[in-house]
Amino acid sequence: MKSLRRVVLLLMTTLGAVSGFARSLVSPEVTADGRVTFRLAAPDAQSVVLRCEALAVETAMVRGESGVWSFTTEALEPDIYTYSFVVDGARMTDPANPLLKYNLLNSDSEVHVPGPASLPWELNDVPRGVVHRHFFRSKVVGDERDFLVYTPPGYKADGRTRYPVLYLLHGYSDDATAWSTVGRANVILDNLIARGEAQPMVVVMPLGYGSLDIVRAGWNRERDPAREDGNVDTFARTLLEEVMPQVEAEYAVARDREHRAIAGLSMGGRESLIVGLNHLETFAWVGAFSPGGFRDDFPTKFPGLEAADNKRLCLLWIGCGTEDGLINMNRRVHAWLDEKGVRHTWVETPGAHTFRVWRRYLAQLAPQLFQPRR
Amino acid sequence: MKSLRRVVLLLMTTLGAVSGFARSLVSPEVTADGRVTFRLAAPDAQSVVLRCEALAVETAMVRGESGVWSFTTEALEPDIYTYSFVVDGARMTDPANPLLKYNLLNSDSEVHVPGPASLPWELNDVPRGVVHRHFFRSKVVGDERDFLVYTPPGYKADGRTRYPVLYLLHGYSDDATAWSTVGRANVILDNLIARGEAQPMVVVMPLGYGSLDIVRAGWNRERDPAREDGNVDTFARTLLEEVMPQVEAEYAVARDREHRAIAGLSMGGRESLIVGLNHLETFAWVGAFSPGGFRDDFPTKFPGLEAADNKRLCLLWIGCGTEDGLINMNRRVHAWLDEKGVRHTWVETPGAHTFRVWRRYLAQLAPQLFQPRR
Repeated sequence: MKSLRRVVLLLMTTLGAVSGFARSLVSPEVTADGRVTFRLAAPDAQSVVLRCEALAVETAMVRGESGVWSFTTEALEPDIYTYSFVVDGARMTDPANPLLKYNLLNSDSEVHVPGPASLPWELNDVPRGVVHRHFFRSKVVGDERDFLVYTPPGYKADGRTRYPVLYLLHGYSDDATAWSTVGRANVILDNLIARGEAQPMVVVMPLGYGSLDIVRAGWNRERDPAREDGNVDTFARTLLEEVMPQVEAEYAVARDREHRAIAGLSMGGRESLIVGLNHLETFAWVGAFSPGGFRDDFPTKFPGLEAADNKRLCLLWIGCGTEDGLINMNRRVHAWLDEKGVRHTWVETPGAHTFRVWRRYLAQLAPQLFQPRR
Repeated sequence: MKSLRRVVLLLMTTLGAVSGFARSLVSPEVTADGRVTFRLAAPDAQSVVLRCEALAVETAMVRGESGVWSFTTEALEPDIYTYSFVVDGARMTDPANPLLKYNLLNSDSEVHVPGPASLPWELNDVPRGVVHRHFFRSKVVGDERDFLVYTPPGYKADGRTRYPVLYLLHGYSDDATAWSTVGRANVILDNLIARGEAQPMVVVMPLGYGSLDIVRAGWNRERDPAREDGNVDTFARTLLEEVMPQVEAEYAVARDREHRAIAGLSMGGRESLIVGLNHLETFAWVGAFSPGGFRDDFPTKFPGLEAADNKRLCLLWIGCGTEDGLINMNRRVHAWLDEKGVRHTWVETPGAHTFRVWRRYLAQLAPQLFQPRR
């Protein structure tokens, strides 16, 4: 009788895992004290490994009798962590978990360990902005692309208000949706605006590539410097010649440099520095989160930048995690700017090359934007 | 020398599969004549199975020397097909493919076999509408939810134009994004409007659940009739009392029944029939694509419906695929409506319970909406 029950249970679990229906399997399960149990039904697998950014190392999951593999962490700090499973050498997202970190090369699952309402990415009962997705054919590149626009709560296009605008750029292998879905930029702005800590602003999140070929080619070929420069240059044209004119025609945004900011993460941080610092006639506020792709080639990347630009640069903000592989290059960016006498804010925080760092950086940067000069 | 090369290749493939970077593996690969090759790097797997809606049966993939499993189809008709891999009993999306059919219970990968520009879901060089995503806390349910709004190309809120509005409902286990991302509703409308085949209209795509508990509980418990009815009733309140007032306050939409339509697929088809036909004071146009959840209980679901309603019902459109498990129940819906003398359009087409059918149905239905009565 007991073994019949086991067979039926095993059958149900197998069918559940394969069909995705009749799912009693819960993964991830988060306890009140922040421990997380990950589960995967993989009855025929030889090995299931958990890769989770909350854990220092890859962790073998343990097979239960029913063919469900599982692992439970210690209590984790409140945050949003990415993870995936490796099943007999094949990497996969968690099929039981709808919370996805979508990515063009490398989607992961996410687990949200809830924290206090004061954490910038937590949903609160505050007025919510709207996220608009625009599609267009790029004449510059000849492809179909998109950009997302966050309008703050109470946004009005009544001809009286002109909102300041932040252009917010994603990283390599992300797409235009990443800052709002994974980065929770709209939630972070809603919270900051509700607390009176940030100016109501429009946030534009464009596709950040010169061409998607750079993604199709994969990371290694993107490491070709000429290709990287071409990518930034072409992206800059799509931003300045195509996205910005559409935004300024369709939204009630200010059109002067002191009400325009540009910031981004990783590849997008590189882009925000190169586009922003070389177009101070357009942007007065520049931010870079863990910018990548520099090779001690700052003089050629910022040929005109000098201390005299301090008058025009309302804020230059650069941050990087101390566990990020890019920390040393970014420390050299910081030292070079110091040497040039270019005023900037340099921030080192704990953390690696991850949205756990970048959500915090957006929450730090946004309140400083469009404020009277210090 | 040759074996060293093989070890290096194997190592690269393994690292590529696990890290997601340095990916030379292309999957899916579509040839000009429509054959599709699926590939998965799973060097340690015992078995990899392909489940693709283009194929009648599950298909074992074949392991190549490098640990990459692959399978090539015959030439496929141009369309968008869903598929997934089952690796040693664990179902997964294709890690090499960014085209995802996101779903709360059951995400799949998609392969697009391109076709002529006349296919309704193909991207064309036509003016594009915008998709707006709104977030709100539901007072009816007490949860956080969202709705998406498509505004047509050239949409103007100038006080002169009032657009007709279609409320378009997703199916069980989808979310509010499904109709635009998977269903390509915005692309379909852009194409139809550019050809002058559909009226410029606003399309509202709300989250379609009374409560997300019905998803968390899984499909089997959703089959509880009382629970299903509760789900529809509560969803109807969020639609009528919360979503519609927000839409009518924020968009230039008409507010009379003759300029409001409601349609949906599967669970959303059931909802569009129950909400639409019981609220003819609000909706004059009702469509249902493969509606589900009926149990020959039509008299209790549509207690007031009668032939006299033909005067008020501008269009009642019901379609179902002949390979859909719901075809017989829907034929009985059709027969019951005939018996009652309720005028309606009944469409049977080849196809199963899939977006391949529903994209076509949207392209059939939209041109008929808001047209002068026949």
